[in-house]
Amino acid sequence: VLLPPVVDRLIAELAKLPGIGRRSAERIAFDLVARSPDRPTALATVLMGMAESVRPCPECHLLTEGGRCSVCSDPARDRATLCVVETYADAIAFDRAVSGKPLFHVLGGRLSPLKGVTPSDLCVDQLLSRLDGSVRELILATSPSIEGDATAHYIAQEAAGRVARISRIGRGVPTGGSLEHADSETLRFSVESRRPFDG
Amino acid sequence: VLLPPVVDRLIAELAKLPGIGRRSAERIAFDLVARSPDRPTALATVLMGMAESVRPCPECHLLTEGGRCSVCSDPARDRATLCVVETYADAIAFDRAVSGKPLFHVLGGRLSPLKGVTPSDLCVDQLLSRLDGSVRELILATSPSIEGDATAHYIAQEAAGRVARISRIGRGVPTGGSLEHADSETLRFSVESRRPFDG
Repeated sequence: VLLPPVVDRLIAELAKLPGIGRRSAERIAFDLVARSPDRPTALATVLMGMAESVRPCPECHLLTEGGRCSVCSDPARDRATLCVVETYADAIAFDRAVSGKPLFHVLGGRLSPLKGVTPSDLCVDQLLSRLDGSVRELILATSPSIEGDATAHYIAQEAAGRVARISRIGRGVPTGGSLEHADSETLRFSVESRRPFDG
Repeated sequence: VLLPPVVDRLIAELAKLPGIGRRSAERIAFDLVARSPDRPTALATVLMGMAESVRPCPECHLLTEGGRCSVCSDPARDRATLCVVETYADAIAFDRAVSGKPLFHVLGGRLSPLKGVTPSDLCVDQLLSRLDGSVRELILATSPSIEGDATAHYIAQEAAGRVARISRIGRGVPTGGSLEHADSETLRFSVESRRPFDG
């Protein structure tokens, strides 16, 4: 009863965010309204700016503020190695942990018959068009799960003949876990222990 | 390196929210950018609307979207009882739990010499100006802490003679809590505030 409608709507929006329940959403909303209007305005401005300017890189689908991303346009990157990940967050976690700076390709998910995710829902065609001879190794860094394995299998099949070497990250990462939340040490091990992929 | 500056700024803004660490902020930001621009835009719009329209009620300092709040303007409220709380969130919790619908007054904090919060930082003058004879009981619902007690003492002093009855919310063992784990201060209060048992 004491909630003005707009505060109620804010709580509803906040509660949609991952890891934020109704109670946390209320706490955040009350904190935002209790202070000067600068706080919510600052957050709103950044959100608007992000919605307006951030787009997937046309080449690799990493996020960028316009044109090719900082990875694709970086001459210091190792252009012979291309690392395929499911999400943007996975790419960030990977890049933080791994020293050899590869190119990336964000699929935008993984194959999942149950959730209706088919090859056409992932950015596989764009990936194949990048395998024009300059890439020597494709590292399949999809998640260590049944769906991630299926996705790796599918990509390995499609990419066969277009790249000298196809590898899969080593299983230092526990099955069922997510790349985003794995610690750097585990991710580093997973690269060191990568093995030829036999499809 | 892979983070566009605006995503970095969003993470920084999100990490300022209560209960949100760097890791949660990243997770939320990635979730927001990974979807259509509608999501961040919707959240931004609500935040902007809130920053523009939500103000403290000029009378009781509850939040409202303009003019007197829904409590102060509600003819069905018990205008003889005024409940003094520290924050807006406290008022909401109180109003949800308590059946007799009192008026409220939000102080905007509690006295704290350590944090430099003095009486002039709290909305005490406005509170006193509301004690014009219509209010019969003042319920001091500041927090059960040394600072909350000091605040209650100060208000009781200032309000003396302006209201027939001044009360403090009861203290003791919380429902569902265990005696074993209650601190001695709480147990002492629970004995001091004991009441005849009618079975």
